[in-house]
Amino acid sequence: MSQDTLLIPGPVTLSKNVINTLGSQSLSHLSPEFTSIFKEALQNSRSLFKAHPQRGQPLIIAGSGTLGFDLVGTNLIDPINDKILLLSTGFFSNEFATCLEQNYKVQHLNILKAPIGGVVPMDQIVNSLQQDNYKAIIMTHVDTSTGVRSDVEKISQVVKKISPNTLIVVDAVCSLGCETLKFHDWGLDFALSASQKALGMAPGLSVCMISDRALDVALDEKTKPTGFYASIKNWYPVLKNSELGVATYFATPPVQLIAALNVALKEILSYKYKGLVGIDARVAKHADVSKWFKTKMVQELHLKLLPSSEKNAANGLSAIYADDPASLISYLKNEKHIIVAAGILKEIKSKYFRVGHMGVSACDDSLGQLGSCFDAIQEILQQ
Amino acid sequence: MSQDTLLIPGPVTLSKNVINTLGSQSLSHLSPEFTSIFKEALQNSRSLFKAHPQRGQPLIIAGSGTLGFDLVGTNLIDPINDKILLLSTGFFSNEFATCLEQNYKVQHLNILKAPIGGVVPMDQIVNSLQQDNYKAIIMTHVDTSTGVRSDVEKISQVVKKISPNTLIVVDAVCSLGCETLKFHDWGLDFALSASQKALGMAPGLSVCMISDRALDVALDEKTKPTGFYASIKNWYPVLKNSELGVATYFATPPVQLIAALNVALKEILSYKYKGLVGIDARVAKHADVSKWFKTKMVQELHLKLLPSSEKNAANGLSAIYADDPASLISYLKNEKHIIVAAGILKEIKSKYFRVGHMGVSACDDSLGQLGSCFDAIQEILQQ
Repeated sequence: MSQDTLLIPGPVTLSKNVINTLGSQSLSHLSPEFTSIFKEALQNSRSLFKAHPQRGQPLIIAGSGTLGFDLVGTNLIDPINDKILLLSTGFFSNEFATCLEQNYKVQHLNILKAPIGGVVPMDQIVNSLQQDNYKAIIMTHVDTSTGVRSDVEKISQVVKKISPNTLIVVDAVCSLGCETLKFHDWGLDFALSASQKALGMAPGLSVCMISDRALDVALDEKTKPTGFYASIKNWYPVLKNSELGVATYFATPPVQLIAALNVALKEILSYKYKGLVGIDARVAKHADVSKWFKTKMVQELHLKLLPSSEKNAANGLSAIYADDPASLISYLKNEKHIIVAAGILKEIKSKYFRVGHMGVSACDDSLGQLGSCFDAIQEILQQ
Repeated sequence: MSQDTLLIPGPVTLSKNVINTLGSQSLSHLSPEFTSIFKEALQNSRSLFKAHPQRGQPLIIAGSGTLGFDLVGTNLIDPINDKILLLSTGFFSNEFATCLEQNYKVQHLNILKAPIGGVVPMDQIVNSLQQDNYKAIIMTHVDTSTGVRSDVEKISQVVKKISPNTLIVVDAVCSLGCETLKFHDWGLDFALSASQKALGMAPGLSVCMISDRALDVALDEKTKPTGFYASIKNWYPVLKNSELGVATYFATPPVQLIAALNVALKEILSYKYKGLVGIDARVAKHADVSKWFKTKMVQELHLKLLPSSEKNAANGLSAIYADDPASLISYLKNEKHIIVAAGILKEIKSKYFRVGHMGVSACDDSLGQLGSCFDAIQEILQQ
């Protein structure tokens, strides 16, 4: 539709194979052909989450990433009795909190808010876990609004130690496919993601992973999800069967999106870099590209990054302060046909911009997108 | 992906232009290019519903048609105090009822069940409306499980006369684009549909229309939707702005799906048949094709249709009794590469099959799909 180079933190530039599969004739959602595609897509998404091959269940549902908030709110939380700890590192953490408070009427929601650009200090997390018995802790792996990455592995270790029964819920919308995420090894219980970021697919799919013990909560007869479309009780038998290759019906699956997701997942799982193969190779490449881009921004253009340290800066995007981000963004679009994103964190909205480097934009060097983007930013800043 | 001829009642065969637009590079969801596409898609969907050009709001949301049940359940109904009248003509009406009873805990749900193949008798509807004060009446325009069409116009007239404050909710998943539906003239309040049937697009979008007075309910501060993703309070400002051409964010819209929907809607709105143009032409063509196909089934092949009369037989599909539907379906697939659907109404599941004739399968004569399908069915029945 457009000749512009898309470098926002999602939707991302797609590979040719993904585009070709998106643009394919419809299949019956109950055909053996689609059933086998759906099975593969579920198995491949399991690999991407580094989930156990048999335990838990990947969920692939038509919707946006936001639908994942509802999957958590309506299936895992008793709004009256459960205490929830939520770590906020930006706009999307706050949206998750709003969903739980305003819509699901969660009565005991303790929000620990990180300073802008930072993460929630570990001692605050430890204190909270020691003081109360939380049903779940919720964190945003990478908040797309700030480019801040939380240390999900360390936080999970602390939770396991202090409060092993607490469910660990991770918003992985901006991390799955470009950050190290080990669903099984870290003992996560729910990770929610979406198709249009580092998975390298178009927007339109909610892609999640749920553990066996979170499934026990969701499927318990005492759990009464208000949502019908968001009810894991409705989806679980269908997705479990689909992963076994048995076509089962609840709500027509988006056949083209799922087929294209599967192509995107296979591209990730066959990716090679520095002697690595698959998701590890992909994460390493994202990390290197991110480091390269951020270093150039800081050292050559003397710009300041929003994340307070290299350690909590995401691999998939760079959030960068600038004197006049609005002019920079329109110059890039109008003069260079490069699309980057504005800031969206309320407090500092007009003071920064965001460059996405996920999927093929980061992993296919032949596109040269980030080099061009750097050159263009350099050009405007030198004018 | 497949060379088969797809003739199930959704997902449907897509036109080349729709496929090409689906398979396009991503756009920023906030770009002027996408904003203008989204604006057009909303305006065009308004035309398709025959809604008032300014009143009410079309809703286009990533999800399946089923999401529309939640939009009604969580935004329009007070589960404790509201009385709801639901007319059931098949599997999908029953699903809607299940959603309201089991998930939204609607306490006063009066279900009037039609006999298999029939519609709910008007005197039962009249009696119910006279006896109780209903917040809403819910009906399935065409139940995809049975191919039965309800007379939404007549029922709406009766509702307006007896109980003018009752909201009229129509499941138009299998009717929008192929049946006469006049949202404004009939005084409907909520119509829910989906992209993968007579709209001629891939599955993945919930496409709905809400009236001003239903919006008043949904946006009232007393209305507390449990769903976050299904909250019209969250979507309304975004979709209203998008229809005015102002990019606004809540949950990333599926840019390719919306662009392809817009292409599909434009194909419908420019369609010409028998001196008619647009949706009227499209409905007339579907009606003629349906009549032709059904007549051949009955008169030439001596098969019996599931709908009890011509008047309540849908335009977009034919549900047909057969001695051995399973063999017929697999013969069509294996020998003729034609995909039709099995029955899904529990009581008679193994006794009938369904042929979809929606979108280009019905409207593009050059494809010759239904002629081939008839010939193939004739061939197997004569063996």
